[in-house]
Amino acid sequence: MKDSERPIGIFDSGLGGLTVFKAVRRLMPSENIIYFGDTARVPYGTKSKNAVISFSKEIAALLSARGVKLLIVACNTASSLALEEVRKVSKAPVIGVIEPGARAAAAATVNKRILVAGTTATVLSGAYGRALKKLDPGLLVREKACPLFVPLVEEGWCGKKITELVAAEYLAPFKKQRFDTMILGCTHYPLLKKVIGRVLGRGVRLVDSAEAAAFEARAALVSRDLLNPGYGGKIRFIASDAPEKFRILARRLLGIKTGRVEVKRF
Amino acid sequence: MKDSERPIGIFDSGLGGLTVFKAVRRLMPSENIIYFGDTARVPYGTKSKNAVISFSKEIAALLSARGVKLLIVACNTASSLALEEVRKVSKAPVIGVIEPGARAAAAATVNKRILVAGTTATVLSGAYGRALKKLDPGLLVREKACPLFVPLVEEGWCGKKITELVAAEYLAPFKKQRFDTMILGCTHYPLLKKVIGRVLGRGVRLVDSAEAAAFEARAALVSRDLLNPGYGGKIRFIASDAPEKFRILARRLLGIKTGRVEVKRF
Repeated sequence: MKDSERPIGIFDSGLGGLTVFKAVRRLMPSENIIYFGDTARVPYGTKSKNAVISFSKEIAALLSARGVKLLIVACNTASSLALEEVRKVSKAPVIGVIEPGARAAAAATVNKRILVAGTTATVLSGAYGRALKKLDPGLLVREKACPLFVPLVEEGWCGKKITELVAAEYLAPFKKQRFDTMILGCTHYPLLKKVIGRVLGRGVRLVDSAEAAAFEARAALVSRDLLNPGYGGKIRFIASDAPEKFRILARRLLGIKTGRVEVKRF
Repeated sequence: MKDSERPIGIFDSGLGGLTVFKAVRRLMPSENIIYFGDTARVPYGTKSKNAVISFSKEIAALLSARGVKLLIVACNTASSLALEEVRKVSKAPVIGVIEPGARAAAAATVNKRILVAGTTATVLSGAYGRALKKLDPGLLVREKACPLFVPLVEEGWCGKKITELVAAEYLAPFKKQRFDTMILGCTHYPLLKKVIGRVLGRGVRLVDSAEAAAFEARAALVSRDLLNPGYGGKIRFIASDAPEKFRILARRLLGIKTGRVEVKRF
Protein backbone atom coordinates (compact mmCIF):
# COMPACT_ATOMS: atom_id res chain seq x y z
CA MET A 1 0.00 0.00 0.00
CA LYS A 2 1.25 3.45 -0.89
CA ASP A 3 1.60 5.85 2.05
CA SER A 4 -1.06 8.11 0.58
CA GLU A 5 -3.53 5.23 0.63
CA ARG A 6 -3.15 4.68 4.37
CA PRO A 7 -6.21 5.83 6.29
CA ILE A 8 -6.77 8.98 8.30
CA GLY A 9 -7.53 8.08 11.93
CA ILE A 10 -10.17 10.09 13.77
CA PHE A 11 -11.04 9.50 17.40
CA ASP A 12 -13.56 10.82 19.83
CA SER A 13 -15.03 9.91 23.21
CA GLY A 14 -18.14 8.74 21.38
CA LEU A 15 -20.35 9.89 18.57
CA GLY A 16 -19.73 13.63 18.66
CA GLY A 17 -16.57 13.41 16.57
CA LEU A 18 -18.70 12.29 13.66
CA THR A 19 -19.20 16.01 12.95
CA VAL A 20 -15.45 16.07 12.25
CA PHE A 21 -15.70 12.85 10.27
CA LYS A 22 -18.38 14.43 8.08
CA ALA A 23 -16.33 17.57 7.47
CA VAL A 24 -13.23 15.51 6.56
CA ARG A 25 -15.24 13.27 4.28
CA ARG A 26 -16.85 16.23 2.53
CA LEU A 27 -13.51 17.96 1.97
CA MET A 28 -11.50 14.87 1.08
CA PRO A 29 -13.85 12.21 -0.30
CA SER A 30 -10.95 10.11 -1.62
CA GLU A 31 -9.45 9.47 1.78
CA ASN A 32 -9.74 6.17 3.61
CA ILE A 33 -10.85 6.86 7.20
CA ILE A 34 -10.92 4.86 10.42
CA TYR A 35 -13.13 6.38 13.12
CA PHE A 36 -12.85 5.26 16.74
CA GLY A 37 -15.54 6.14 19.31
CA ASP A 38 -14.75 5.33 22.95
CA THR A 39 -18.37 4.51 23.78
CA ALA A 40 -17.40 2.37 26.79
CA ARG A 41 -15.98 5.36 28.65
CA VAL A 42 -17.94 8.27 27.18
CA PRO A 43 -18.21 11.08 28.25
CA TYR A 44 -14.69 12.47 28.68
CA GLY A 45 -15.86 15.98 29.55
CA THR A 46 -16.57 15.17 33.20
CA LYS A 47 -13.44 13.04 33.79
CA SER A 48 -10.01 14.00 35.12
CA LYS A 49 -7.00 15.00 33.04
CA ASN A 50 -5.22 11.78 34.01
CA ALA A 51 -8.10 9.64 32.83
CA VAL A 52 -8.49 11.52 29.53
CA ILE A 53 -4.75 11.23 28.84
CA SER A 54 -4.70 7.53 29.60
CA PHE A 55 -7.77 6.78 27.42
CA SER A 56 -6.45 8.93 24.56
CA LYS A 57 -3.01 7.31 24.52
CA GLU A 58 -4.58 3.87 24.42
CA ILE A 59 -6.63 4.80 21.36
CA ALA A 60 -3.76 6.61 19.63
CA ALA A 61 -1.61 3.50 20.03
CA LEU A 62 -4.38 1.36 18.55
CA LEU A 63 -4.83 3.64 15.53
CA SER A 64 -1.05 3.86 15.06
CA ALA A 65 -0.93 0.08 14.94
CA ARG A 66 -3.55 0.22 12.18
CA GLY A 67 -1.18 2.35 10.14
CA VAL A 68 -2.96 5.70 10.01
CA LYS A 69 -1.09 8.42 8.10
CA LEU A 70 -2.65 11.26 10.13
CA LEU A 71 -4.42 11.25 13.48
CA ILE A 72 -7.21 13.72 14.20
CA VAL A 73 -8.22 14.09 17.85
CA ALA A 74 -11.82 15.11 17.18
CA CYS A 75 -12.80 15.32 20.85
CA ASN A 76 -12.41 18.82 22.28
CA THR A 77 -11.77 17.47 25.78
CA ALA A 78 -9.01 15.13 24.58
CA SER A 79 -7.57 17.89 22.37
CA SER A 80 -7.52 20.22 25.39
CA LEU A 81 -5.95 17.82 27.85
CA ALA A 82 -4.05 15.12 25.98
CA LEU A 83 -2.69 16.41 22.67
CA GLU A 84 0.97 16.47 23.73
CA GLU A 85 0.76 13.01 25.27
CA VAL A 86 -0.96 11.64 22.18
CA ARG A 87 1.84 13.05 20.01
CA LYS A 88 4.31 11.03 22.07
CA VAL A 89 2.67 7.68 21.23
CA SER A 90 1.47 8.38 17.69
CA LYS A 91 3.68 7.50 14.74
CA ALA A 92 1.58 9.77 12.51
CA PRO A 93 1.28 13.55 12.79
CA VAL A 94 -1.49 14.59 15.19
CA ILE A 95 -4.09 17.33 14.76
CA GLY A 96 -6.48 18.51 17.48
CA VAL A 97 -9.59 20.65 17.16
CA ILE A 98 -8.67 23.49 19.52
CA GLU A 99 -6.16 25.40 17.38
CA PRO A 100 -8.18 25.17 14.15
CA GLY A 101 -11.31 26.30 16.03
CA ALA A 102 -9.44 29.15 17.68
CA ARG A 103 -8.04 30.31 14.34
CA ALA A 104 -11.48 30.27 12.73
CA ALA A 105 -12.94 32.27 15.62
CA ALA A 106 -10.11 34.81 15.64
CA ALA A 107 -10.69 35.31 11.92
CA ALA A 108 -14.46 35.67 12.39
CA THR A 109 -14.63 38.18 15.24
CA VAL A 110 -14.89 41.87 14.47
CA ASN A 111 -15.15 43.33 17.98
CA LYS A 112 -12.56 40.91 19.41
CA ARG A 113 -14.95 39.40 21.96
CA ILE A 114 -15.19 35.61 21.82
CA LEU A 115 -17.30 33.30 23.97
CA VAL A 116 -16.33 29.62 24.23
CA ALA A 117 -18.81 26.90 25.26
CA GLY A 118 -17.44 23.48 26.14
CA THR A 119 -17.46 20.55 28.54
CA THR A 120 -16.38 21.08 32.14
CA ALA A 121 -12.96 19.55 31.44
CA THR A 122 -12.35 21.62 28.30
CA VAL A 123 -13.32 24.87 30.04
CA LEU A 124 -11.27 24.08 33.15
CA SER A 125 -8.24 23.38 30.96
CA GLY A 126 -8.40 26.90 29.51
CA ALA A 127 -7.05 25.51 26.23
CA TYR A 128 -9.20 27.67 23.95
CA GLY A 129 -8.35 30.81 25.90
CA ARG A 130 -4.62 30.08 25.57
CA ALA A 131 -4.86 29.29 21.86
CA LEU A 132 -6.87 32.47 21.19
CA LYS A 133 -4.56 34.73 23.21
CA LYS A 134 -1.60 33.31 21.34
CA LEU A 135 -3.21 34.31 18.06
CA ASP A 136 -4.17 37.75 19.33
CA PRO A 137 -3.42 38.94 22.87
CA GLY A 138 -6.02 41.68 22.39
CA LEU A 139 -8.94 39.26 22.31
CA LEU A 140 -11.42 39.22 25.17
CA VAL A 141 -12.32 35.57 25.86
CA ARG A 142 -14.84 34.05 28.23
CA GLU A 143 -15.33 30.28 28.61
CA LYS A 144 -18.50 28.60 29.87
CA ALA A 145 -19.05 24.92 30.74
CA CYS A 146 -22.37 23.53 29.46
CA PRO A 147 -22.40 19.92 30.75
CA LEU A 148 -26.06 19.23 29.92
CA PHE A 149 -25.67 19.88 26.19
CA VAL A 150 -24.17 16.45 25.43
CA PRO A 151 -26.88 14.40 27.19
CA LEU A 152 -29.57 16.60 25.58
CA VAL A 153 -28.16 15.88 22.12
CA GLU A 154 -27.86 12.17 22.86
CA GLU A 155 -31.48 12.15 24.04
CA GLY A 156 -32.39 13.52 20.60
CA TRP A 157 -33.90 16.70 22.09
CA CYS A 158 -32.01 19.17 19.87
CA GLY A 159 -35.14 20.99 18.79
CA LYS A 160 -37.09 20.99 22.05
CA LYS A 161 -38.13 24.03 24.07
CA ILE A 162 -36.46 22.54 27.17
CA THR A 163 -33.13 22.51 25.37
CA GLU A 164 -33.54 26.18 24.56
CA LEU A 165 -34.26 26.87 28.25
CA VAL A 166 -31.09 25.02 29.24
CA ALA A 167 -29.12 27.00 26.65
CA ALA A 168 -30.61 30.23 28.03
CA GLU A 169 -29.69 29.22 31.59
CA TYR A 170 -26.06 28.75 30.51
CA LEU A 171 -25.65 31.51 27.96
CA ALA A 172 -28.15 34.33 28.52
CA PRO A 173 -25.95 35.93 31.23
CA PHE A 174 -23.35 36.55 28.50
CA LYS A 175 -25.70 38.41 26.18
CA LYS A 176 -24.95 41.81 27.69
CA GLN A 177 -21.24 41.42 27.06
CA ARG A 178 -21.60 41.88 23.28
CA PHE A 179 -19.71 38.81 22.10
CA ASP A 180 -19.91 38.67 18.30
CA THR A 181 -18.45 35.15 18.03
CA MET A 182 -18.94 31.93 19.93
CA ILE A 183 -16.89 28.74 19.62
CA LEU A 184 -18.94 25.53 19.78
CA GLY A 185 -16.18 23.88 21.78
CA CYS A 186 -17.51 20.33 21.85
CA THR A 187 -18.26 18.13 18.87
CA HIS A 188 -21.88 17.65 19.95
CA TYR A 189 -22.69 21.34 20.02
CA PRO A 190 -23.06 21.97 16.27
CA LEU A 191 -26.24 19.90 16.57
CA LEU A 192 -27.56 22.63 18.89
CA LYS A 193 -26.73 25.53 16.55
CA LYS A 194 -30.37 26.51 16.12
CA VAL A 195 -31.29 26.74 19.80
CA ILE A 196 -28.02 28.42 20.72
CA GLY A 197 -28.59 30.88 17.88
CA ARG A 198 -32.07 31.66 19.19
CA VAL A 199 -30.68 32.33 22.69
CA LEU A 200 -27.75 34.51 21.63
CA GLY A 201 -29.44 36.27 18.72
CA ARG A 202 -28.43 36.79 15.11
CA GLY A 203 -25.48 39.04 15.83
CA VAL A 204 -23.36 36.18 17.16
CA ARG A 205 -21.43 34.01 14.73
CA LEU A 206 -21.19 30.35 15.83
CA VAL A 207 -17.86 28.74 14.99
CA ASP A 208 -17.64 24.99 14.76
CA SER A 209 -14.17 23.43 14.96
CA ALA A 210 -15.07 20.48 12.75
CA GLU A 211 -14.73 22.24 9.43
CA ALA A 212 -11.62 24.14 10.52
CA ALA A 213 -10.02 20.87 11.64
CA ALA A 214 -10.79 19.28 8.27
CA PHE A 215 -9.00 22.12 6.43
CA GLU A 216 -6.02 21.78 8.78
CA ALA A 217 -5.95 18.03 8.12
CA ARG A 218 -5.90 18.60 4.38
CA ALA A 219 -3.07 21.12 4.72
CA ALA A 220 -1.08 18.62 6.80
CA LEU A 221 -1.51 15.92 4.15
CA VAL A 222 -0.67 18.24 1.25
CA SER A 223 2.50 19.47 2.92
CA ARG A 224 3.64 15.87 3.45
CA ASP A 225 2.58 14.76 -0.03
CA LEU A 226 0.17 12.26 1.53
CA LEU A 227 -3.13 13.27 -0.07
CA ASN A 228 -4.86 10.27 -1.61
CA PRO A 229 -5.28 10.85 -5.34
CA GLY A 230 -7.70 7.91 -5.70
CA TYR A 231 -11.46 7.76 -6.10
CA GLY A 232 -13.94 7.10 -3.28
CA GLY A 233 -12.23 6.42 0.06
CA LYS A 234 -13.28 3.55 2.32
CA ILE A 235 -14.64 4.23 5.77
CA ARG A 236 -14.57 2.06 8.83
CA PHE A 237 -15.97 2.53 12.32
CA ILE A 238 -14.81 1.07 15.62
CA ALA A 239 -16.50 1.51 19.00
CA SER A 240 -15.36 0.30 22.43
CA ASP A 241 -18.94 -0.61 23.40
CA ALA A 242 -22.45 -0.99 21.98
CA PRO A 243 -21.59 -0.97 18.25
CA GLU A 244 -25.23 -1.40 17.23
CA LYS A 245 -26.31 1.67 19.22
CA PHE A 246 -23.43 3.59 17.64
CA ARG A 247 -24.67 2.59 14.18
CA ILE A 248 -28.24 3.65 14.93
CA LEU A 249 -27.33 6.99 16.55
CA ALA A 250 -24.83 7.84 13.80
CA ARG A 251 -27.65 7.52 11.33
CA ARG A 252 -30.31 9.24 13.44
CA LEU A 253 -28.25 12.18 14.70
CA LEU A 254 -25.93 12.73 11.76
CA GLY A 255 -27.35 10.82 8.81
CA ILE A 256 -24.21 8.70 8.49
CA LYS A 257 -24.52 5.14 7.22
CA THR A 258 -21.70 3.36 8.99
CA GLY A 259 -22.26 -0.20 7.83
CA ARG A 260 -21.08 -2.77 10.36
CA VAL A 261 -19.35 -1.20 13.38
CA GLU A 262 -16.40 -3.16 14.72
CA VAL A 263 -16.14 -3.54 18.49
CA LYS A 264 -12.84 -3.25 20.35
CA ARG A 265 -13.01 -3.62 24.13
CA PHE A 266 -10.25 -2.39 26.43
CA MET B 1 -9.99 -9.60 62.62
CA LYS B 2 -13.30 -11.25 63.46
CA ASP B 3 -15.54 -11.97 60.46
CA SER B 4 -18.16 -9.56 61.80
CA GLU B 5 -15.59 -6.76 61.76
CA ARG B 6 -14.90 -7.16 58.05
CA PRO B 7 -16.37 -4.33 56.01
CA ILE B 8 -19.50 -4.20 53.91
CA GLY B 9 -18.59 -3.40 50.28
CA ILE B 10 -20.86 -1.08 48.32
CA PHE B 11 -20.29 -0.24 44.71
CA ASP B 12 -21.84 2.04 42.17
CA SER B 13 -21.01 3.54 38.77
CA GLY B 14 -20.28 6.80 40.54
CA LEU B 15 -21.78 8.94 43.26
CA GLY B 16 -25.42 7.85 43.11
CA GLY B 17 -24.87 4.79 45.28
CA LEU B 18 -24.08 7.11 48.16
CA THR B 19 -27.87 7.16 48.78
CA VAL B 20 -27.49 3.45 49.57
CA PHE B 21 -24.38 4.13 51.61
CA LYS B 22 -26.33 6.65 53.69
CA ALA B 23 -29.21 4.24 54.28
CA VAL B 24 -26.82 1.45 55.32
CA ARG B 25 -24.91 3.75 57.61
CA ARG B 26 -28.10 5.04 59.24
CA LEU B 27 -29.43 1.53 59.82
CA MET B 28 -26.11 -0.07 60.86
CA PRO B 29 -23.81 2.62 62.24
CA SER B 30 -21.42 0.05 63.68
CA GLU B 31 -20.51 -1.45 60.34
CA ASN B 32 -17.22 -0.80 58.58
CA ILE B 33 -17.93 0.15 54.96
CA ILE B 34 -15.86 0.38 51.79
CA TYR B 35 -17.57 2.32 49.00
CA PHE B 36 -16.32 2.11 45.42
CA GLY B 37 -17.44 4.61 42.76
CA ASP B 38 -16.44 3.85 39.14
CA THR B 39 -16.06 7.51 38.25
CA ALA B 40 -13.73 6.76 35.32
CA ARG B 41 -16.47 4.93 33.41
CA VAL B 42 -19.63 6.55 34.76
CA PRO B 43 -22.42 6.45 33.62
CA TYR B 44 -23.35 2.77 33.26
CA GLY B 45 -26.97 3.47 32.27
CA THR B 46 -26.15 4.20 28.64
CA LYS B 47 -23.63 1.35 28.18
CA SER B 48 -24.13 -2.22 26.91
CA LYS B 49 -24.80 -5.28 29.04
CA ASN B 50 -21.36 -6.67 28.19
CA ALA B 51 -19.62 -3.52 29.36
CA VAL B 52 -21.62 -3.28 32.59
CA ILE B 53 -20.91 -6.95 33.39
CA SER B 54 -17.21 -6.56 32.72
CA PHE B 55 -16.89 -3.37 34.84
CA SER B 56 -18.95 -4.88 37.68
CA LYS B 57 -16.92 -8.10 37.85
CA GLU B 58 -13.69 -6.11 37.98
CA ILE B 59 -14.96 -4.11 40.98
CA ALA B 60 -16.46 -7.15 42.73
CA ALA B 61 -13.09 -8.90 42.47
CA LEU B 62 -11.35 -5.85 43.93
CA LEU B 63 -13.75 -5.63 46.88
CA SER B 64 -13.53 -9.38 47.44
CA ALA B 65 -9.77 -9.05 47.66
CA ARG B 66 -10.29 -6.41 50.35
CA GLY B 67 -12.17 -8.97 52.41
CA VAL B 68 -15.73 -7.61 52.39
CA LYS B 69 -18.26 -9.75 54.26
CA LEU B 70 -21.20 -8.61 52.13
CA LEU B 71 -21.31 -6.92 48.74
CA ILE B 72 -24.09 -4.47 47.87
CA VAL B 73 -24.48 -3.60 44.20
CA ALA B 74 -25.94 -0.14 44.74
CA CYS B 75 -26.17 0.72 41.06
CA ASN B 76 -29.55 -0.14 39.55
CA THR B 77 -28.04 -0.67 36.11
CA ALA B 78 -25.41 -3.10 37.43
CA SER B 79 -28.04 -4.81 39.60
CA SER B 80 -30.26 -5.23 36.53
CA LEU B 81 -27.61 -6.55 34.18
CA ALA B 82 -24.75 -8.05 36.16
CA LEU B 83 -25.95 -9.50 39.48
CA GLU B 84 -25.55 -13.15 38.52
CA GLU B 85 -22.11 -12.55 37.04
CA VAL B 86 -21.02 -10.60 40.13
CA ARG B 87 -22.14 -13.51 42.33
CA LYS B 88 -19.76 -15.76 40.39
CA VAL B 89 -16.69 -13.70 41.28
CA SER B 90 -17.62 -12.51 44.77
CA LYS B 91 -16.56 -14.53 47.78
CA ALA B 92 -19.14 -12.68 49.91
CA PRO B 93 -22.92 -12.85 49.51
CA VAL B 94 -24.22 -10.28 47.02
CA ILE B 95 -27.28 -8.02 47.31
CA GLY B 96 -28.66 -5.86 44.50
CA VAL B 97 -31.17 -3.04 44.69
CA ILE B 98 -33.81 -4.36 42.27
CA GLU B 99 -35.46 -7.03 44.43
CA PRO B 100 -35.57 -4.93 47.62
CA GLY B 101 -37.02 -2.01 45.65
CA ALA B 102 -39.58 -4.26 43.96
CA ARG B 103 -40.65 -5.70 47.31
CA ALA B 104 -41.06 -2.26 48.83
CA ALA B 105 -43.13 -1.11 45.85
CA ALA B 106 -45.32 -4.23 45.85
CA ALA B 107 -45.99 -3.64 49.54
CA ALA B 108 -46.78 0.04 48.97
CA THR B 109 -49.21 -0.15 46.04
CA VAL B 110 -52.93 -0.34 46.72
CA ASN B 111 -54.32 -0.33 43.18
CA LYS B 112 -51.57 -2.62 41.87
CA ARG B 113 -50.30 -0.12 39.30
CA ILE B 114 -46.56 0.58 39.52
CA LEU B 115 -44.47 2.90 37.39
CA VAL B 116 -40.69 2.39 37.24
CA ALA B 117 -38.28 5.16 36.22
CA GLY B 118 -34.69 4.20 35.47
CA THR B 119 -31.72 4.54 33.13
CA THR B 120 -32.02 3.32 29.55
CA ALA B 121 -30.09 0.13 30.36
CA THR B 122 -32.16 -0.66 33.47
CA VAL B 123 -35.44 -0.15 31.63
CA LEU B 124 -34.33 -2.15 28.59
CA SER B 125 -33.32 -5.02 30.88
CA GLY B 126 -36.89 -5.27 32.22
CA ALA B 127 -35.42 -6.37 35.58
CA TYR B 128 -37.90 -4.43 37.74
CA GLY B 129 -40.85 -5.73 35.74
CA ARG B 130 -39.68 -9.31 36.17
CA ALA B 131 -39.05 -8.91 39.91
CA LEU B 132 -42.45 -7.29 40.44
CA LYS B 133 -44.35 -9.90 38.42
CA LYS B 134 -42.62 -12.63 40.40
CA LEU B 135 -43.91 -11.07 43.62
CA ASP B 136 -47.42 -10.57 42.24
CA PRO B 137 -48.40 -11.54 38.70
CA GLY B 138 -51.45 -9.29 39.05
CA LEU B 139 -49.41 -6.08 39.10
CA LEU B 140 -49.59 -3.68 36.17
CA VAL B 141 -46.07 -2.37 35.56
CA ARG B 142 -44.79 0.28 33.16
CA GLU B 143 -41.11 1.23 32.87
CA LYS B 144 -39.79 4.55 31.58
CA ALA B 145 -36.19 5.53 30.78
CA CYS B 146 -35.25 9.02 32.01
CA PRO B 147 -31.64 9.47 30.82
CA LEU B 148 -31.43 13.20 31.57
CA PHE B 149 -32.13 12.81 35.30
CA VAL B 150 -28.56 11.77 36.18
CA PRO B 151 -26.81 14.67 34.40
CA LEU B 152 -29.36 17.10 35.89
CA VAL B 153 -28.58 15.86 39.40
CA GLU B 154 -24.84 16.01 38.75
CA GLU B 155 -25.23 19.58 37.48
CA GLY B 156 -26.78 20.39 40.87
CA TRP B 157 -30.09 21.45 39.25
CA CYS B 158 -32.37 19.32 41.46
CA GLY B 159 -34.59 22.24 42.44
CA LYS B 160 -34.72 24.11 39.12
CA LYS B 161 -37.83 24.71 37.02
CA ILE B 162 -36.05 23.18 33.98
CA THR B 163 -35.67 19.90 35.87
CA GLU B 164 -39.39 19.89 36.58
CA LEU B 165 -40.06 20.44 32.87
CA VAL B 166 -37.81 17.50 31.98
CA ALA B 167 -39.60 15.35 34.57
CA ALA B 168 -42.95 16.41 33.09
CA GLU B 169 -41.74 15.53 29.58
CA TYR B 170 -40.85 12.02 30.76
CA LEU B 171 -43.61 11.32 33.26
CA ALA B 172 -46.69 13.45 32.55
CA PRO B 173 -47.95 11.03 29.86
CA PHE B 174 -48.31 8.42 32.63
CA LYS B 175 -50.54 10.57 34.85
CA LYS B 176 -53.78 9.38 33.26
CA GLN B 177 -52.94 5.76 33.99
CA ARG B 178 -53.54 6.14 37.74
CA PHE B 179 -50.29 4.67 39.05
CA ASP B 180 -50.27 4.96 42.85
CA THR B 181 -46.61 3.94 43.25
CA MET B 182 -43.42 4.78 41.41
CA ILE B 183 -40.02 3.15 41.84
CA LEU B 184 -37.09 5.57 41.72
CA GLY B 185 -35.06 3.00 39.82
CA CYS B 186 -31.70 4.76 39.81
CA THR B 187 -29.70 5.83 42.83
CA HIS B 188 -29.62 9.46 41.67
CA TYR B 189 -33.39 9.80 41.49
CA PRO B 190 -34.15 10.18 45.23
CA LEU B 191 -32.47 13.58 44.89
CA LEU B 192 -35.30 14.51 42.48
CA LYS B 193 -38.12 13.39 44.76
CA LYS B 194 -39.55 16.88 45.09
CA VAL B 195 -39.79 17.69 41.37
CA ILE B 196 -41.05 14.21 40.50
CA GLY B 197 -43.63 14.53 43.27
CA ARG B 198 -44.78 17.86 41.84
CA VAL B 199 -45.19 16.32 38.37
CA LEU B 200 -47.03 13.18 39.44
CA GLY B 201 -49.06 14.70 42.27
CA ARG B 202 -49.53 13.69 45.89
CA GLY B 203 -51.39 10.47 45.17
CA VAL B 204 -48.25 8.72 43.96
CA ARG B 205 -45.93 7.12 46.48
CA LEU B 206 -42.25 7.30 45.50
CA VAL B 207 -40.28 4.21 46.46
CA ASP B 208 -36.53 4.46 46.78
CA SER B 209 -34.55 1.21 46.69
CA ALA B 210 -31.80 2.51 48.95
CA GLU B 211 -33.60 2.03 52.24
CA ALA B 212 -35.07 -1.31 51.19
CA ALA B 213 -31.60 -2.51 50.20
CA ALA B 214 -30.21 -1.48 53.58
CA PHE B 215 -32.85 -3.56 55.38
CA GLU B 216 -32.10 -6.52 53.13
CA ALA B 217 -28.38 -6.13 53.87
CA ARG B 218 -29.04 -6.16 57.60
CA ALA B 219 -31.19 -9.28 57.29
CA ALA B 220 -28.42 -10.99 55.31
CA LEU B 221 -25.85 -10.17 58.01
CA VAL B 222 -28.12 -11.22 60.88
CA SER B 223 -28.92 -14.57 59.26
CA ARG B 224 -25.19 -15.27 58.86
CA ASP B 225 -24.33 -13.99 62.33
CA LEU B 226 -22.11 -11.33 60.76
CA LEU B 227 -23.55 -8.14 62.27
CA ASN B 228 -20.82 -6.02 63.82
CA PRO B 229 -21.59 -5.57 67.51
CA GLY B 230 -18.97 -2.81 67.92
CA TYR B 231 -19.28 0.96 68.22
CA GLY B 232 -18.85 3.42 65.35
CA GLY B 233 -17.87 1.73 62.07
CA LYS B 234 -15.09 3.07 59.86
CA ILE B 235 -15.82 4.25 56.36
CA ARG B 236 -13.58 4.39 53.35
CA PHE B 237 -14.12 5.65 49.82
CA ILE B 238 -12.43 4.60 46.59
CA ALA B 239 -12.98 6.14 43.15
CA SER B 240 -11.55 5.09 39.79
CA ASP B 241 -11.07 8.73 38.73
CA ALA B 242 -11.16 12.29 40.09
CA PRO B 243 -11.18 11.52 43.83
CA GLU B 244 -11.23 15.19 44.77
CA LYS B 245 -14.33 15.85 42.68
CA PHE B 246 -15.93 12.79 44.30
CA ARG B 247 -15.21 14.22 47.74
CA ILE B 248 -16.67 17.61 46.86
CA LEU B 249 -19.82 16.27 45.20
CA ALA B 250 -20.44 13.73 48.00
CA ARG B 251 -20.54 16.63 50.37
CA ARG B 252 -22.50 19.01 48.17
CA LEU B 253 -25.14 16.59 46.90
CA LEU B 254 -25.49 14.27 49.88
CA GLY B 255 -23.87 15.98 52.84
CA ILE B 256 -21.36 13.14 53.29
CA LYS B 257 -17.90 13.92 54.64
CA THR B 258 -15.75 11.29 52.95
CA GLY B 259 -12.32 12.32 54.20
CA ARG B 260 -9.55 11.41 51.76
CA VAL B 261 -10.81 9.44 48.76
CA GLU B 262 -8.45 6.73 47.56
CA VAL B 263 -7.94 6.43 43.80
CA LYS B 264 -7.77 3.07 42.02
CA ARG B 265 -7.31 3.20 38.25
CA PHE B 266 -8.15 0.27 35.99
